[in-house]
Amino acid sequence: MNPFSPPKRILMGPGPSNVHPRVLEAMSRPTIGHLDPKFIELMDEIKGLLKYAFQTENEVTFAVSGPGSVGMETCLVNLVEPGSEVLVCINGVFGGRMKSIVERCDAKPIVVNNPWGSAVDLNLFEDTLKNNKAITVCVFVHAETSTGAKSNIKALTEIAHQHNCLVIADTVTSLGGIPLKIDEWNIDVAYSGSQKCLSCPPGLAPITFNSRAVEFIKNRENIVQSWFMDLNLVLGYWGKGAKRAYHHTAPINSLYALHESLLLLKEEGIENSWSRHQKNGDELVSELEKIGLKPFVKVNERLPQLTSTTIQDGIDDASVRKSLLQKYNIEIGAGLGDLSGKVWRIGLMGYSSNEENINACVRALNELINKN
Amino acid sequence: MNPFSPPKRILMGPGPSNVHPRVLEAMSRPTIGHLDPKFIELMDEIKGLLKYAFQTENEVTFAVSGPGSVGMETCLVNLVEPGSEVLVCINGVFGGRMKSIVERCDAKPIVVNNPWGSAVDLNLFEDTLKNNKAITVCVFVHAETSTGAKSNIKALTEIAHQHNCLVIADTVTSLGGIPLKIDEWNIDVAYSGSQKCLSCPPGLAPITFNSRAVEFIKNRENIVQSWFMDLNLVLGYWGKGAKRAYHHTAPINSLYALHESLLLLKEEGIENSWSRHQKNGDELVSELEKIGLKPFVKVNERLPQLTSTTIQDGIDDASVRKSLLQKYNIEIGAGLGDLSGKVWRIGLMGYSSNEENINACVRALNELINKN
Repeated sequence: MNPFSPPKRILMGPGPSNVHPRVLEAMSRPTIGHLDPKFIELMDEIKGLLKYAFQTENEVTFAVSGPGSVGMETCLVNLVEPGSEVLVCINGVFGGRMKSIVERCDAKPIVVNNPWGSAVDLNLFEDTLKNNKAITVCVFVHAETSTGAKSNIKALTEIAHQHNCLVIADTVTSLGGIPLKIDEWNIDVAYSGSQKCLSCPPGLAPITFNSRAVEFIKNRENIVQSWFMDLNLVLGYWGKGAKRAYHHTAPINSLYALHESLLLLKEEGIENSWSRHQKNGDELVSELEKIGLKPFVKVNERLPQLTSTTIQDGIDDASVRKSLLQKYNIEIGAGLGDLSGKVWRIGLMGYSSNEENINACVRALNELINKN
Repeated sequence: MNPFSPPKRILMGPGPSNVHPRVLEAMSRPTIGHLDPKFIELMDEIKGLLKYAFQTENEVTFAVSGPGSVGMETCLVNLVEPGSEVLVCINGVFGGRMKSIVERCDAKPIVVNNPWGSAVDLNLFEDTLKNNKAITVCVFVHAETSTGAKSNIKALTEIAHQHNCLVIADTVTSLGGIPLKIDEWNIDVAYSGSQKCLSCPPGLAPITFNSRAVEFIKNRENIVQSWFMDLNLVLGYWGKGAKRAYHHTAPINSLYALHESLLLLKEEGIENSWSRHQKNGDELVSELEKIGLKPFVKVNERLPQLTSTTIQDGIDDASVRKSLLQKYNIEIGAGLGDLSGKVWRIGLMGYSSNEENINACVRALNELINKN
């Protein structure tokens, strides 16, 4: 068996995105102890940088030591009490996953179902809250990675708060890619992933809780069902001050990488990052249309960092993606669920969101689907 | 804010250990997609290498995408049904953690308490099983990282099986460092961590389940309370064959590192790794004794990869550790719980287990405690 030599791919799927060389280099710096004073300093810097990325002053802002789905489960197990009712918006894969976790918390999910590829319908959301007075928490996805649709989480949060509910927003694919303003929009809890618009290797889940959410967690009636995800314990480690209690061994080198990727975001400026993603997403759609590939999501609900494009009749989804990967080293994403074989998902996230990648991908797709 | 520049530490605490340069370099290779055929090949190789490390043919052998404590919780939430009784052996911090997780599974922990720094007492273990016929699962720690004590998990497993119980062994600090033979010892389930004797950065938890454990999980009465840790779902991703179902985004670059560290173990040969740890551990104890530091754990229960040493009266624990770190760049571990201020924990794990480190540490300790 030999050392692994990964091919050099252009990552234009639903994530991971290509990682900036500075971030890869940071990851290979010497490992230090997870209670080393220098590491504690790094943790504090990461908290500060994540506050910038989330546009929040929330003290409880840190990175969960696991992929985005652990971030999701962390938010839910802390905010959902057994027997409670939770409004779950489903317009793609990730809403469905949240429903499953709510059930595993012995709570009752009340589902707002929306067509895949559409935003969450605000009227339907509000009506459901009016008809289910026991709901205490509402969960929704900002940027549905499985379809490329964006929901108006600012408006959803306003409605939820009118009904005295806390909200949890999935911002896995939105953080760093499209405007997301935790404090201005009054979002109680949000989680994300490192490997999308932050262009960091996968394995960490940035997360933020406002004081209302923290208060709720501190006063829960039942103990959080997960030891690893219990915020009351995790905060002993990621909390304020130099005196940290051992909880688990943080993934040191992954946090080096996250720090570097957040520095890159800060250097670019988050507004500049948002406009770069928007500009490149618009250009991708217009270039795809020229070769006959139409966007699947309507324009005002479309994510610039993840474009779903309808596959024309007669084109074999899998063989095109295979050729893209093997001949051009370009990865794009398949459709999921009912959209399998019907759409491709083309990501332009973080470091992957650039003119060169748009051109390479559109040229390759054109050769594969129009010149056979 | 600047890029993070970690100091070069000699890591001789309870983990992480120093990471081999080849492993750090592997971690910085270009990220590829988590469903890329090349990545699937890597996953298969990692499974094979982990089977070697665990000395098992168990098909269900892989790396959980989280630190060792997620490995622990994964094993427990899958094997513990609500309302069941679980025998938990406590002889240090990690047994206590397992008890907390068992309670969070709505199960009843039956505790076998042993003094910190001692192995689990076999007679006490057997008597507890005789007196509690409803116990279905027994959990114990092979190498207690909080004390440096080794338990006889081969004998514990034999006794547990005589009482028709499944066993879960915590092998976080033992894997690669002392003999551990999953198949020969008939251990049903074991979890470990990447950052101890494998000398890989923290963030992954190697894990193995035999067919009896898998059968149990498939036939559980209740759904596993964690979505992320539900083995029935995870195996769709890590399972056999080329067709993998998306579950979560694996921490790609961390898996590059694990692969490389497992290659290093294979190149050395696991028996050679075990003897190197034993030889260096013995030497450390003998050198420490020369400067007046006595081992805390009795010889036949002592771990070579983690030596607890009694701190003499009049020595200020914290200030010695601080000087060690600041003046000599050497990290050792503090005592935990009742042992706080009473012992130091000196690790010689994986790449850190070498003559040079022994000499550097003993020399520095001697200067700090005997020459003031």
